[in-house]
Amino acid sequence: MSAQLSQDELKKQAAWKAVEYVKSGMKVGLGTGSTAAFAVERIGELLANGTLKDIICVPTSTRTQEQATSLSIPLATLDEVPKLDVAIDGADEVDPALNVVKGRGGALLREKMVEMASDTFVCIVDETKLVDGLGGSKLAMPVEIVQFCWKYNLERLKNLPEVAGCEAKLRMEGDSPYVTDNSNYIVDLYFDNPIKDSYAAAKAISDLEGVVDHGLFLDMVTTCIIAGSDGVVVKEK
Amino acid sequence: MSAQLSQDELKKQAAWKAVEYVKSGMKVGLGTGSTAAFAVERIGELLANGTLKDIICVPTSTRTQEQATSLSIPLATLDEVPKLDVAIDGADEVDPALNVVKGRGGALLREKMVEMASDTFVCIVDETKLVDGLGGSKLAMPVEIVQFCWKYNLERLKNLPEVAGCEAKLRMEGDSPYVTDNSNYIVDLYFDNPIKDSYAAAKAISDLEGVVDHGLFLDMVTTCIIAGSDGVVVKEK
Repeated sequence: MSAQLSQDELKKQAAWKAVEYVKSGMKVGLGTGSTAAFAVERIGELLANGTLKDIICVPTSTRTQEQATSLSIPLATLDEVPKLDVAIDGADEVDPALNVVKGRGGALLREKMVEMASDTFVCIVDETKLVDGLGGSKLAMPVEIVQFCWKYNLERLKNLPEVAGCEAKLRMEGDSPYVTDNSNYIVDLYFDNPIKDSYAAAKAISDLEGVVDHGLFLDMVTTCIIAGSDGVVVKEK
Repeated sequence: MSAQLSQDELKKQAAWKAVEYVKSGMKVGLGTGSTAAFAVERIGELLANGTLKDIICVPTSTRTQEQATSLSIPLATLDEVPKLDVAIDGADEVDPALNVVKGRGGALLREKMVEMASDTFVCIVDETKLVDGLGGSKLAMPVEIVQFCWKYNLERLKNLPEVAGCEAKLRMEGDSPYVTDNSNYIVDLYFDNPIKDSYAAAKAISDLEGVVDHGLFLDMVTTCIIAGSDGVVVKEK
């Protein structure tokens, strides 16, 4: 009789399964967040015990960089290693087509750059992240915008027909706007109902001058590993 | 027998003609650069002598803001005045369809935001700015990118099939990279031959993660005023 697995145990199961996609000699993108951290830890273990050799990793955030450094994982940047074999990262929401929302941690642009640079993107989640449609979790869908005239751009985002009905809020950190690694602000969009057409929404958001990037990661995930109470499920795109 | 007009005289003629599009009560976008400066000066004169009343202007740069302030022109930002009646600005290149390259001064994002917010965009140039195809002047077409992994993004820009054959250079200011008002870098693209398909190039450039904006202003100019040795020509889109 197995005990109920904790959410952390589920995240770890998904992460370990994902690391099976990493082979010696590969160039690997390392994601950010609590689930990705288990994958980084596992890669560190397999390097230390000699199972994995000659891999070079590109981290998607300072936090991940620090974790990887502490585990003696060899690191590089996209400037040095522009093409990756596999990237492993969590997601905030996953829809049935394996399109995802990411970036609630604020690192969306770096994550998107690293994962776009990778031949395969293995997304790791526990089953609580599954949604019928993106935006359906009622949590934030982040949009990174330049600081200049942010109110103007917040209003324009809110009024896009493609995200009709969303609420838009400037992300704060205490009394000041949250500032990304790229010196930009984040506007968080909250939806009452899932986004009807994620592709149309992504295009409309990207087309606004002053938008740097957004948390809709469409047609990027190649493999999704979902850990749930019934075990680990692997879905291929 | 008229003397040959200087380039400055031509710029001034175009600018004065453009200011005829400004009526009392309007909200007006003010461009940046030597040609736009003549328009700002003229608006200041017409306000001072009472010909124009009740206008509010939105500047596209700190430099223009300072000039307008010195002329007692009432100013606002897009945060306060999100919809403009007319914007007046110069351009670096104008093609036969009135698509333009702008932003060699580095203010491309603010210029694009202000001009997109305007019902009409009156572009003012002297005849030296006319090209058969964008990129044809062999001067820079600027792309604003985030600082993070700029080498990676410079390589990706250079290798886009849509801008095949271009040279890509990080814009410098002395020994350091030039930094825009939005804390980004600029990659200048130089073309041996005009860009074949400006729309395809604009889309491909925008689609790269890490690109904030670019100097291709397509389908934005509603009126182009061209000053040449044979007089001032007005072209409507």
